[in-house]
Amino acid sequence: MTDTPRRRPGGPTRRQLLLGGAVAGVGAAAAVGADALTRPGERPAADPAPEPLAGAGTVPFHGAHQAGVATAPQAHVSLVALDLLDGTDRDALRRLMQLLSDDAARLTQGVAALADSEPELAVVPAHLTVTFGFGPELVRRAATGSDAAPSWLRPLPPFTIDRLDPAWSDGDLLLQIASDDPMTVAHAQRMLLKDTRSFATVRWTQAGFRRARGSEASGTTMRNLFGQIDGTVNLEPGTPDFEDLVWVRDGWLAGGTSLVLRRIHMDLDKWDRLDRGGREQSVGRYLSNGAPLTGTHEHDEPDFTATSRIGFPVIPEFSHMRRARSEDTSQRIFRRGYNYDDAPSGDRVSSSGLLFVSYQADVDAQFVPLQRRLDELDLLNEWTTPVGSAVFAIPPGCAEGGYVGETILA
Amino acid sequence: MTDTPRRRPGGPTRRQLLLGGAVAGVGAAAAVGADALTRPGERPAADPAPEPLAGAGTVPFHGAHQAGVATAPQAHVSLVALDLLDGTDRDALRRLMQLLSDDAARLTQGVAALADSEPELAVVPAHLTVTFGFGPELVRRAATGSDAAPSWLRPLPPFTIDRLDPAWSDGDLLLQIASDDPMTVAHAQRMLLKDTRSFATVRWTQAGFRRARGSEASGTTMRNLFGQIDGTVNLEPGTPDFEDLVWVRDGWLAGGTSLVLRRIHMDLDKWDRLDRGGREQSVGRYLSNGAPLTGTHEHDEPDFTATSRIGFPVIPEFSHMRRARSEDTSQRIFRRGYNYDDAPSGDRVSSSGLLFVSYQADVDAQFVPLQRRLDELDLLNEWTTPVGSAVFAIPPGCAEGGYVGETILA
Ligand code: HEM
Ligand code: HEM
Repeated sequence: MTDTPRRRPGGPTRRQLLLGGAVAGVGAAAAVGADALTRPGERPAADPAPEPLAGAGTVPFHGAHQAGVATAPQAHVSLVALDLLDGTDRDALRRLMQLLSDDAARLTQGVAALADSEPELAVVPAHLTVTFGFGPELVRRAATGSDAAPSWLRPLPPFTIDRLDPAWSDGDLLLQIASDDPMTVAHAQRMLLKDTRSFATVRWTQAGFRRARGSEASGTTMRNLFGQIDGTVNLEPGTPDFEDLVWVRDGWLAGGTSLVLRRIHMDLDKWDRLDRGGREQSVGRYLSNGAPLTGTHEHDEPDFTATSRIGFPVIPEFSHMRRARSEDTSQRIFRRGYNYDDAPSGDRVSSSGLLFVSYQADVDAQFVPLQRRLDELDLLNEWTTPVGSAVFAIPPGCAEGGYVGETILA
Repeated sequence: MTDTPRRRPGGPTRRQLLLGGAVAGVGAAAAVGADALTRPGERPAADPAPEPLAGAGTVPFHGAHQAGVATAPQAHVSLVALDLLDGTDRDALRRLMQLLSDDAARLTQGVAALADSEPELAVVPAHLTVTFGFGPELVRRAATGSDAAPSWLRPLPPFTIDRLDPAWSDGDLLLQIASDDPMTVAHAQRMLLKDTRSFATVRWTQAGFRRARGSEASGTTMRNLFGQIDGTVNLEPGTPDFEDLVWVRDGWLAGGTSLVLRRIHMDLDKWDRLDRGGREQSVGRYLSNGAPLTGTHEHDEPDFTATSRIGFPVIPEFSHMRRARSEDTSQRIFRRGYNYDDAPSGDRVSSSGLLFVSYQADVDAQFVPLQRRLDELDLLNEWTTPVGSAVFAIPPGCAEGGYVGETILA
C-alpha cells in the first residue's frame, strides 16, 4: 500500500497540508466557472458576497474566561455529558483535561487536533468554541483538602413541574461544542470524544440549533419553536452587570461560572390549540416583535401597572415574563439556550423544545429562586415540561500552554 | 383573554404582519448599536457583509420539475417517510397532495402556510425546498388502469452488504425538506406533518447536513465524515447528460425522477485504524484535494492504466471510484447525499454515516447495476454498511394553482 507515487499537491508543511484541501476547493470552484455557482431556478441576488468566508471566523480559546459563554451564540450546539470511569483519579483527570484543552485550542483555531484522523475537516472553525464543565463527582475526585466544591454544585432541588429522565440529566464532565457549521461540530465532537475514551463514557448528547449565521441580521434575538422571541431581557456580555453576576470571584472557580441545563419539552400540539391572544398573555409580550403588551418595540420597558379598560392588568400576573422577573436584581441569570427538534415517532408530529442553558455565578442565589417562582406559578407551565436537568461548574479559562481545570488539578 | 389593548406594531395586511417580526428584528439590532454586534474576543474581520441576508434567498416551488433535485444542495435536510392510513384512498390522496403543495408553495417563498401556527418562523426561507416522493403503495392507490407504476418502484433487490433496519427503510410518501437554516427545516416539517395527520403516520425521519452556507466558497465539493471529498464525478445540473439521465420522459412521471435513499453507516473507529495511504487507495483519490491518485487537481481525469514502479495499478482495481464507474455511460446517477451524525450511546463515540441520495430516470437501469458492482467488490465496503434503503418516484413539478401528483391523481 506504500508503493504508489506520492504526488501530493500543496507544500510540505503540516499547516499547508491541512489547508491544501480548502484552498484547492476554492480553486476548483473557480475552474468550474461562475455558471456552476448559480443553479437553475435560484435567485442569486440574495446570496451573500463570496468573500470573506464566515467559516474562517475564529473565537480565541485562551483567556481569563472560557469561550462559549460571553461568545455570541453560534447556530449549532452539541452538549455532551460524560461519566468518569472508576479508575479516573486526580492524575488521570489532569491528563484528560490537558489533552482536551490542547484539542480545543487547536480545533477552535481551525487547526487539526494532534493525531486528527480527518485533518481536512478541521479547517473551517466557523466560530467554534469548546467549553468544559465539571460535575460534582469530577470535582470530588479533583479536589484536595483546600478546594471545596461550591455548595451549589449538585442536582437542583426537585420542582413540581419536573418530569426528569436520567437519560437527559446530570453527568461528570460536560463538553459544550458550538459552531456556526454543523460539520465542524461533528468533527470537533468526534476528536474530543476519542481523547476521552480511556477516561469516561458518554452519558448523553443533546443537539441544539438557532437560525443559521447570516439568515438574519446579527444581533436579532432568537425565536424558539413556539415562535416567541426568546432572550430579549438578558444580561449583556461586556456590561458591568454581566461581569458581576456571571463570573465567580473567589477560589479555584474565580473567572469561571456555573451552567444550568434544563431540557424543556414544548408541547407544540397543545400550543396549537391556544389562540394568538392567549399565547401573548402567557408570556406578556407580542409574538410579532416581542414588545411587551404595554409597549411597541422589543426593548421597551414593560409597564406592569397598566390595566385594561375593565381593570385587569395588561400584562397578566401569572405571565412568564412577570414571574421570571425578580425585584432583587442580584437574582438575574444569563440565558443562552438552543432549540431542539428530535425525530418524532408514531403519530407524534414532533419531539421538540428548548435546551435552556443559563450561566450564573451562584446557582442557589440566582437560578434556584427564579425556577422556584416559575414552579409555583407560570402560565407557560401549561405547555412546557422539564425532562432533563444538569448543573456544572465551568472553570475559568487558561493561558496558552495551560489547560482548563488547572486551578483545581495542578 | 381578549380584553387587552391591541397595539400591534406593523401594518394591517397579513404579509406585513408576517414580516413585521423580521423587520422589527433588524430595527432592534440597529437600535442596540453596532457594539452589540461584536462580542468580546471575536474576530469581526471574517464576518460576512451584513446585507443581503442569505436567509432571504428563495428557490421557486413551481416549474416543470420539482425543486430540490437540481437545486444546489442546502446545508440541512430532513427526510421524512410516512405510512398511509388504511382509509387514505385516491380522493384523500388528492386532497393531501393539494394541501401539501399549497403549504410548500408558500413556505418555500417565505410566506406562512395557511393556518400556520407560528407564522413568524416562516419568514426566513434560506433556500427552502420541499420535494415529494411516492412509494409503491401510494402509487398503487393512486393509479387508475392506464397509469402503471414504473417497474423500478419497489424495494431494491437484496445486496450481500445490506444490514437493513425496517426503521430506516421504505415508506409510502416522502417529504424531502432542505434549507440552509435548521430552524426553517424544523418549522416547515412541522407545518407539513400537521397537514398529513388525518392521512398518514410518520414512519421515520432522517436528518442530514453539509457545511453551513457561507462556510466555504460556493461550489466546493462536500466532504463526508471520512474526510473524503465526495461528489466530484457527478452529473451536473443544466447539462444535457443531466437532463437525459435524471428526468423521466414518458407517462405520468414525465419531468419527474426517482430517488434512492441508502442510509449507510460509516465505521469511523475502524476507519481510524487505516493509514492515509490505505484510505486514499480505498477510493483512488487523494484526501487533501480529491485529485485522482494519478493526477494533481480534483477534476483531473483518472488514468486507470497507470502503474507503479513495481507494476501495480496506481488506482487499485477494487477502489471505490473504479468500481463505481461503468463503461456504459447510461448507467450514471446524480448523487446528492448528506452526512448524518446521531447521538452515540455507551462507549461508542459516534453513530455516523451518509444519507446517500441519488436521482435517476430509471432505478433498475442506472442505480441497480452500479450498486451490484459495488456489492460484489469495493474496498470501501470494509468500512461502510447500508442500514436503511428506500425507493420513491418523484413526480414532476406543477404550475401555480396545480399540485404535485396531479399527473396521476387528477
Ligand atoms: C420552554 C421553556 C421556556 C420558554 C418557552 C421561555 C420563553 C420566554 C420568553 C418568550 C420570554 C420573553 C422574552 C425575553 O425576555 O426573553 C422569556 C423571558 C424570561 N425567561 Fe423564559 N422561557 C422558558 C423557560 C425559562 C426558565 C426555565 C427560566 C429560568 C428558570 C426562564 C427565565 C426567563 C427570564 C429570567 C426571562 C426574562 C424576564 C424579564 O423580562 O425580566 N425561562 N422566556
Ligand atoms: C458511505 C458510502 C460511500 C462513500 C463514503 C462514498 C464515497 C465516494 C468518494 C469519496 C468518491 C470519489 C469522489 C467523487 O467522485 O465523488 C465516490 C465516487 C462515486 N461513488 Fe461513492 N461513496 C459511497 C457510497 C456509494 C454508493 C452506495 C454508490 C452507488 C450505488 C456510490 C456511487 C459513486 C459513484 C458513481 C462515484 C463516481 C465514480 C466515478 O469517478 O465515476 N457511492 N464515492
